[in-house]
Amino acid sequence: MSHMLTGVPASPGIAIAKAFRLAPDESVPERKAVEDSAAEKERFMKAVESAKTDIDRIRQQTLERIGPQKAEIFEAHLFLLDDPDLIDAAMEQIDSEGVNAEYALHEVASGIMEALRSMDNELLRERAADVKDITGRVISKLEGREHSALSELSEETILVAKDLTPSDTAQLNLEFVRGFVTEIGSRTSHSAIMARSLELAAVVGTGSEASDIHTGDIVILDANEGKVIVNPSNEQLEEYKARKQAYEDYKILMRSYVDQPSVTADGASVELASNIGGIDDLEKVLSNGADAIGLFRTEFLYMGRASFPSEEEQYSVYKHVLEKMNGKRVVIRTLDIGGDKELSYLQLPKEMNPFLGLRAIRLCLDREDLFRTQLRALLRASVHGKLAIMFPMIAVLNELKEAKRILAEERTRLEQEGIAVSDQLEVGIMVEIPAAALAADILAKEVDFFSIGTNDLIQYTMAADRMNESVAYLYQPHHPSILRLVQLVIQAAERHGKWAGMCGEMAGDSAAIPLLLGLGLHEFSMSASSILPARELVSRLSKQEWSGLAEKALGMSTQQEVLDFVNQQLRSEA
Amino acid sequence: MSHMLTGVPASPGIAIAKAFRLAPDESVPERKAVEDSAAEKERFMKAVESAKTDIDRIRQQTLERIGPQKAEIFEAHLFLLDDPDLIDAAMEQIDSEGVNAEYALHEVASGIMEALRSMDNELLRERAADVKDITGRVISKLEGREHSALSELSEETILVAKDLTPSDTAQLNLEFVRGFVTEIGSRTSHSAIMARSLELAAVVGTGSEASDIHTGDIVILDANEGKVIVNPSNEQLEEYKARKQAYEDYKILMRSYVDQPSVTADGASVELASNIGGIDDLEKVLSNGADAIGLFRTEFLYMGRASFPSEEEQYSVYKHVLEKMNGKRVVIRTLDIGGDKELSYLQLPKEMNPFLGLRAIRLCLDREDLFRTQLRALLRASVHGKLAIMFPMIAVLNELKEAKRILAEERTRLEQEGIAVSDQLEVGIMVEIPAAALAADILAKEVDFFSIGTNDLIQYTMAADRMNESVAYLYQPHHPSILRLVQLVIQAAERHGKWAGMCGEMAGDSAAIPLLLGLGLHEFSMSASSILPARELVSRLSKQEWSGLAEKALGMSTQQEVLDFVNQQLRSEA
Repeated sequence: MSHMLTGVPASPGIAIAKAFRLAPDESVPERKAVEDSAAEKERFMKAVESAKTDIDRIRQQTLERIGPQKAEIFEAHLFLLDDPDLIDAAMEQIDSEGVNAEYALHEVASGIMEALRSMDNELLRERAADVKDITGRVISKLEGREHSALSELSEETILVAKDLTPSDTAQLNLEFVRGFVTEIGSRTSHSAIMARSLELAAVVGTGSEASDIHTGDIVILDANEGKVIVNPSNEQLEEYKARKQAYEDYKILMRSYVDQPSVTADGASVELASNIGGIDDLEKVLSNGADAIGLFRTEFLYMGRASFPSEEEQYSVYKHVLEKMNGKRVVIRTLDIGGDKELSYLQLPKEMNPFLGLRAIRLCLDREDLFRTQLRALLRASVHGKLAIMFPMIAVLNELKEAKRILAEERTRLEQEGIAVSDQLEVGIMVEIPAAALAADILAKEVDFFSIGTNDLIQYTMAADRMNESVAYLYQPHHPSILRLVQLVIQAAERHGKWAGMCGEMAGDSAAIPLLLGLGLHEFSMSASSILPARELVSRLSKQEWSGLAEKALGMSTQQEVLDFVNQQLRSEA
Repeated sequence: MSHMLTGVPASPGIAIAKAFRLAPDESVPERKAVEDSAAEKERFMKAVESAKTDIDRIRQQTLERIGPQKAEIFEAHLFLLDDPDLIDAAMEQIDSEGVNAEYALHEVASGIMEALRSMDNELLRERAADVKDITGRVISKLEGREHSALSELSEETILVAKDLTPSDTAQLNLEFVRGFVTEIGSRTSHSAIMARSLELAAVVGTGSEASDIHTGDIVILDANEGKVIVNPSNEQLEEYKARKQAYEDYKILMRSYVDQPSVTADGASVELASNIGGIDDLEKVLSNGADAIGLFRTEFLYMGRASFPSEEEQYSVYKHVLEKMNGKRVVIRTLDIGGDKELSYLQLPKEMNPFLGLRAIRLCLDREDLFRTQLRALLRASVHGKLAIMFPMIAVLNELKEAKRILAEERTRLEQEGIAVSDQLEVGIMVEIPAAALAADILAKEVDFFSIGTNDLIQYTMAADRMNESVAYLYQPHHPSILRLVQLVIQAAERHGKWAGMCGEMAGDSAAIPLLLGLGLHEFSMSASSILPARELVSRLSKQEWSGLAEKALGMSTQQEVLDFVNQQLRSEA
């Protein structure tokens, strides 16, 4: 009998193939009394070392197949296998309770996972998956088992699992795997992120219903809609074969926009740029025909390592990206660390409200040494392309002036050292704090550009943590309050002859693009996969018409009213 | 030799008297091995019981001398003496380590205090003082000592101490104590709050220098400026006697404004109201001639107890306040709990950014039962005076409509039960979220009034936790971004024939009042002690003139520029 499940559409695509069920390993190791704790601890450390060797191999594979950034997760795993909270604690339990290593490790890991999962923070909850992954690996070693199912695949397959660990996804055989379904997870789970990187269709978070899918079942995976149909009827098979075809046609249509200019129906040019989080993302930026990089997050350079990256190391990354972009603009954001994003080698006080704390430019102005290193690397790289430096979390003019003063000092110092710096270099700020948007006219005189960071701007304007599910209803990009702030920023830029862009998720949202276009936004920076659909959409819109429509939306009362209005307009134009 | 210390001016006044040094008890109890743990635990529990009896007596004294709200802290102490994390943990340590009770309690309490003090939250840090207070009391009992120094005073005295515990301050002999100096503490310490309640001059947080002051030293305490002069010269004595006289004259001048109307030099009427946190504050509201209560925080009704307050209990408090205010308006804010303000009997998930979480109206709309109880109590009380109900943390119109719908339902229900509800009742919102200020024109149609909550509004507009010292520099009430939001709110209210007030600290700030007046603010709600100075200031200002000046300030670039401008204007007018 055919039946359907729904889940989170984590990575787009439609696939039709046989299911392969990855058996869940939920078994709890038996507790056994151990006389010789010293020998047991030695056995345990051997298993840990052997697990490290495996992980290092997978890290290497990932580095070659996917890229350095995704490989970092396995560095995190290697770190975990040295973490005293896990390893020393298990050793101690072997000792103090006289139990076997499997049991001790499982106990300690369960405590850690439970603590992580109870956090109201999706990222920390996801870390529980890392602990589970390495714990399972060490226990397998202790029990003398090896996982190998994933490499034995020999025909087109849709993987079904409770969850895929990072090491599972890293080892997927792309020759045969067409997509996957997992019972748990969200759009930001490791598995979801990997699926998008690998361009595999994926539906996650279906709940326990997916446990009824067996190896050999025929599965339709519609990851565009978040649907999974198990043992479909012939009608369903026909329907989805047609849909799959239509989707592939759509992708071909989209491909035709790769080399097109980003121009509206009434001839206005805009810039469709891409956000990137590391050099791994460059290929997709280029293959999707981005006009620019609108946000290059530099945090990856600082994370998953033991000390600050050197000026040289940073310089070579910035240079690489600028050269790859071959004259197209690259907006590089200075370090946005602090608050919830921690570095193991940078001790910061615990904050009660990290999103309202010492982060980004606030931290950089407090820790000038690390700021200056990054600025020098950026200034040196500026001669290799079209660089724009962007300061995050600017709230008031004094901060901007201080950041610019430090930048100017480093520039002078480099020039005195005889090192060239581009005179085309642009300097701007992210507008992501309400105070900055409200004072955009004041700040505009001191910048070359604004880039509106809607994720934070919405969070602060609504006073609602965007990671907190209880107040998720307040994340309203289309609310008139937000649109009014956006308008203030764009108008201030225009009045001072500067350009205004946007690098939050809103910039790639097809229900927001028409309004933003109407408000006069010049640059839209989004994930690479949204660029072609955005270019196609923009080509159908009239900027002049939407200028009037946006003005109307600003006077509406609720986000819903605005959304209904935009969607109705788009339908009537189609 | 005369020397001077400086500290935080915690409660105004000037006093000149001999010092009395309260000896600090920093001794660590000796660790002793105890054979008979059972007997030791019994000895411990006897001391705990005896401490409870003392605390209950002090609670009773405080209730009579100061009022029910300040007495609550001793209820908290009684709770602590039943807290398993402290008491059971100490018992367990007596058992497991075979040590004496003094040592065990000191160890456990030190751990708790250290954890509390490491928090980035002043309120939690202050709780460490409570733990210290009761621990010291129980240890004294165990050691057969009694504190009594404070009741032996027999001449005018300025107390000097490392810190004053809540029980110290509750037992101060007001006949002789003229003020106090403490080495640690801030404006929000228990001792500071008590000093303001008792109208005693106090300087806190002087640092360890105050440990050089000895009993019998002559001390000048200038708590207006946060200065402490020890063994002053004759010149200094003369100078400060004159200053004391001038301050007393100033207080007399202020008293002359008690029964004056709040009117500007050019004849515009405003309302100078008071914020209160409980019924203990009523007396000061009346004695300072407040025109209204602009913010009645109802959290005290819910805190320091074991279950929600009943409708009846709330009703009698609201009725009492309305009757005492005798026809003057009382703005009562519905429950603003959640986030950092926790209730022991209301389980809420831990949040990563509580200031951006499920608090205030968000929580009330989620937990309608407790919201309805409060609304019914308010509606019933409405016939006893001039009530205005205010919803906190409204971000978007839907929340306001939902709150109003529930209010209307309860009103109908009461009327069906034959219970009268005033038809003069006003309903408004606190504007403390940027989104609400930006959409004030949309919200204005649905309210009778706005009250701008600047403490939160500044925090969110600047994205800077106001309890976090690292970003304290962003708490800028005079920043043009803040003034622009304030103007939006006032203009929206005016356009819809509603009134606009302000109940954050800014409303009582003499450098902000002229601008707010110029922007057209109608109601200024502040701490009771600021009302008379504000009335005197307002009587010297021209609303029309400041309307032009405020417009000018809105176009400035920084808070400093605005402050300099206002101060210069005020000086030139004086």
